[in-house]
Amino acid sequence: MKVVKKITEVREEIRKARCKGKSIGLVPTMGFLHSGHLSLVRESVSGCTFTVVSIFVNPTQFGKSEDYGTYPRDIQRDLMMLKKERVDLVFTPSVEEMYRQDAETYVIVDKLSRVLEGRFRPSHFRGVCTIVCKLFNIVMPDRAYFGWKDAQQLVVIKKMVEDLNIPVEVVGCPTVREKDGLAASSRNVYIKDKDKEKALSLYKGLKKIEETFLKKKLKDSGALIRIGKKVIEKYPDVKLQYLKIVSMDNLAPIKRIEGKVLVLGAIKLSSVRLIDNVILTCR
Amino acid sequence: MKVVKKITEVREEIRKARCKGKSIGLVPTMGFLHSGHLSLVRESVSGCTFTVVSIFVNPTQFGKSEDYGTYPRDIQRDLMMLKKERVDLVFTPSVEEMYRQDAETYVIVDKLSRVLEGRFRPSHFRGVCTIVCKLFNIVMPDRAYFGWKDAQQLVVIKKMVEDLNIPVEVVGCPTVREKDGLAASSRNVYIKDKDKEKALSLYKGLKKIEETFLKKKLKDSGALIRIGKKVIEKYPDVKLQYLKIVSMDNLAPIKRIEGKVLVLGAIKLSSVRLIDNVILTCR
Repeated sequence: MKVVKKITEVREEIRKARCKGKSIGLVPTMGFLHSGHLSLVRESVSGCTFTVVSIFVNPTQFGKSEDYGTYPRDIQRDLMMLKKERVDLVFTPSVEEMYRQDAETYVIVDKLSRVLEGRFRPSHFRGVCTIVCKLFNIVMPDRAYFGWKDAQQLVVIKKMVEDLNIPVEVVGCPTVREKDGLAASSRNVYIKDKDKEKALSLYKGLKKIEETFLKKKLKDSGALIRIGKKVIEKYPDVKLQYLKIVSMDNLAPIKRIEGKVLVLGAIKLSSVRLIDNVILTCR
Repeated sequence: MKVVKKITEVREEIRKARCKGKSIGLVPTMGFLHSGHLSLVRESVSGCTFTVVSIFVNPTQFGKSEDYGTYPRDIQRDLMMLKKERVDLVFTPSVEEMYRQDAETYVIVDKLSRVLEGRFRPSHFRGVCTIVCKLFNIVMPDRAYFGWKDAQQLVVIKKMVEDLNIPVEVVGCPTVREKDGLAASSRNVYIKDKDKEKALSLYKGLKKIEETFLKKKLKDSGALIRIGKKVIEKYPDVKLQYLKIVSMDNLAPIKRIEGKVLVLGAIKLSSVRLIDNVILTCR
């Protein structure tokens, strides 16, 4: 496994891999890897013959009052984990390598970035799209892997790829959960032991919606959301930011469930913000 | 010379050319070709082994009150001209092929797009950057050719390519002029015979600035601009929109000329808008 910090080095390694006829998979991450990231890496290693993992805490996707400075980092641990997975190349650029001081180009997916997470994190998806577009241009992968845990991010990136004709196949992978059901996330380290139960409230609300949908065949979104909210409201100190049922393609609100839909939400627990979702399939 | 309308057809032709080890040059145009376009095509044909010309009147770079509907088009004449130049592939997509109805992704070069032309055409460069980014992703050329006639466009595209790490070499080619000095432009067909002299006012102002700079070694931008404006003001019915001396790299205003600088302006002559520029080099 090679670890490089420079864009020119990535391009050179990719050129060599292409010469050997390799197919390239990219897993973009912000590091502090967990089982969710590893599932993406495994998907890439099994589907492509050359896997690149990028580790870059991207400043432009954090709001001014968000946790860029304190976002957890442990590059040595990350590299050990990736080596075990037989990753071929790890790209760990500095902020200066990725952004010139006078950088002023942005990629914007307009409407999809303004709803749900976008209402609470106005410039977040602009930062995500711009860095992902840059990574695609640097690595030029055949496939790129993202988790359904960040469902809106995945939908936004798929839209960007389609609208800009980027020659990459975007692969969405299922959310990985801890034993208790909490969706794997680097930000879970922020959760104090005494708050673990409260952090699970969103997942429990989502699960209740899923159960009601499956067992009672209830398809009315309004009724399902009310049932989910009731579960979350039982937990003290948990502030629900949103809980919605939307289309998997374009995040449009769904009134009556047909086909596949996303149920997604965000909660705030003191200063920790958590998101999660489940997918409902109407057969 | 092959002419195709579909993105998938372009990708297939490019794949075949790449297999043969060809280097790919792209000349993006809006058609109604003139000597300026042909100079770009010749540069590509001489510098690359496979030249692609795109012909697409891009609706998203026209303002609501601008000339999208009346922009001159003559695809048969264009194709004859390109055949003579030994172009390999011409891409003539429909609007529907390039933009899905629900397209909502934009590429924005922020500050550079707001000055000069941007003040008169607020969403113009957003449209230009988005379509050029799409064409780059479809054709994946080694080099792409643009004229210095549209100086700000060239600077904006170079910035986009740098900021987004797009693996394309952007080549700027000198402005081609008609015998009388008027910069070649598809929009020159809008100029009535009786207005030809007035249309030349901008070029004459720019020439006067260049002469004063070369002969009198005058390097003060303010003084040079005043001299240029005086020339243009002599022409009745010509409305000067701006006349500035700026850096070739970042379009920043220049007070005292050093190195290479751009002198650029825009005039309006009844409903016809014309732009032009000259480059001054301080030795």
